[in-house]
Amino acid sequence: MPLVRIDVDASITPEVRQTIGGIVYDAMTSAAKVPAHDKFMIVSTHAAGDLIFPAEGYLGIQYTAGIVFTQITWNAGRTTEVKKAFYRKVADDIHDRTGIRKEDVWISLVEVSPENWSFGNGEMQYAPK
Amino acid sequence: MPLVRIDVDASITPEVRQTIGGIVYDAMTSAAKVPAHDKFMIVSTHAAGDLIFPAEGYLGIQYTAGIVFTQITWNAGRTTEVKKAFYRKVADDIHDRTGIRKEDVWISLVEVSPENWSFGNGEMQYAPK
Amino acid sequence: MPLVRIDVDASITPEVRQTIGGIVYDAMTSAAKVPAHDKFMIVSTHAAGDLIFPAEGYLGIQYTAGIVFTQITWNAGRTTEVKKAFYRKVADDIHDRTGIRKEDVWISLVEVSPENWSFGNGEMQYAPK
Repeated sequence: MPLVRIDVDASITPEVRQTIGGIVYDAMTSAAKVPAHDKFMIVSTHAAGDLIFPAEGYLGIQYTAGIVFTQITWNAGRTTEVKKAFYRKVADDIHDRTGIRKEDVWISLVEVSPENWSFGNGEMQYAPK
Repeated sequence: MPLVRIDVDASITPEVRQTIGGIVYDAMTSAAKVPAHDKFMIVSTHAAGDLIFPAEGYLGIQYTAGIVFTQITWNAGRTTEVKKAFYRKVADDIHDRTGIRKEDVWISLVEVSPENWSFGNGEMQYAPK
Repeated sequence: MPLVRIDVDASITPEVRQTIGGIVYDAMTSAAKVPAHDKFMIVSTHAAGDLIFPAEGYLGIQYTAGIVFTQITWNAGRTTEVKKAFYRKVADDIHDRTGIRKEDVWISLVEVSPENWSFGNGEMQYAPK
C-alpha cells in the first residue's frame, strides 16, 4: 500500500539508493504496521540545484545537498506516536547505515483510503467487504 | 483536474509512454467521469533498480521491472464501484495495447477538493459559486 | 512544511528552474502564510513528450511544451481566498520574471495534517502539544 517516493541528488549511488529504500521498508513494517512485502518505491535522481532547501535552515536544522526527500502515500489511521517512531527509525537507520546526516532525512506523509489502490491485475485488493 | 504521474523504467519507449498516457486518459473519461480534454500528465523514467517492488510479490501478484506506477491526484467523490471499473479498464487496456503484464499495472489515487487546482492563468477554475 | 514538486521540460535552464522555485516560495510566504525559510522543493526535468497536456486546451486555456507543473503538499486550513491569491501571484510572477506564459502555470494542492512531516533529525517538529 504505501507508495514511497525517494528523491535524491544524482551523486547518490544506486547502492545507497537501494539501501535507503530497504531502510524505509524495514521501518514501515516494524514501526508502522505496513504488511510484509508491501514494498513499492520510486526513486528519482536530480541534477545539482534541483533539490531545494533553505540556506538558513528551518526550525534549527541545517541541510546539505545530500538531503533525502521521502514522501509516502499510505492509508490513514496511523497514530501520532506511530508516526514519531517511524520518523525516528528512518533517520537513525539511514544515518547508521549510510552515513547520511540525520538532519538531511526529510519525510512527508499523505494519507488516503483503502479503496485508492490497485496493486496490479486491475483489481481493488483492499475493497470493502 | 486529475494530475497523473506515470513512472516507468527508462527502457519503455516514448511511444509506449504516450500510449499508456492515452489509455489512462481514456479510462478516466469513460469510467470515472473526468471531463473531456482534462488530460494533464507527468511521465518520468527511471534507471534500472529505481523502481522498487517486492521480489516475493504481494497479495499473490508477481511484478517485473516493467512495472508501471500510476498515481493520480483528482477530486474526491468517486465511488468504490467507479474506482474498480477504472482500475480494471486501465489494466486491461494497457495489456491489450502494449503487451505489458496486467500484474505490472499499479495505481494509487489521492483525493483533493475542487479549490485545489489552477489550470493555468493564475485562476481557480473550480472555485465554489 | 510545504513539499513543492516542480516538473518542467528539460529545455528549461537551471537558472529558470531556480527562479521558478524562488517565486513559488515567495508566493507561499507572502500570500499563503507559509513560515519563512520553509522552502523545500524537488525539481524534475522531463524529455520532450513526457509532460502531457490536451492539444485542444482545457476550460478555454491553451498550453505549450513550456508548461510548468507545480504540485504542493501542505497543511490543510488555507481558505479559498488565500488559494486564489496564491495562484494569481505565482502565475503573475512567473510570467513577469521568466516570460513563461501565464496559461502554462499549472498548480495542484494536496492537503495533509501537521503530524505528517519530519523536517529532519527523525523528529516530528509539528507534533501536537
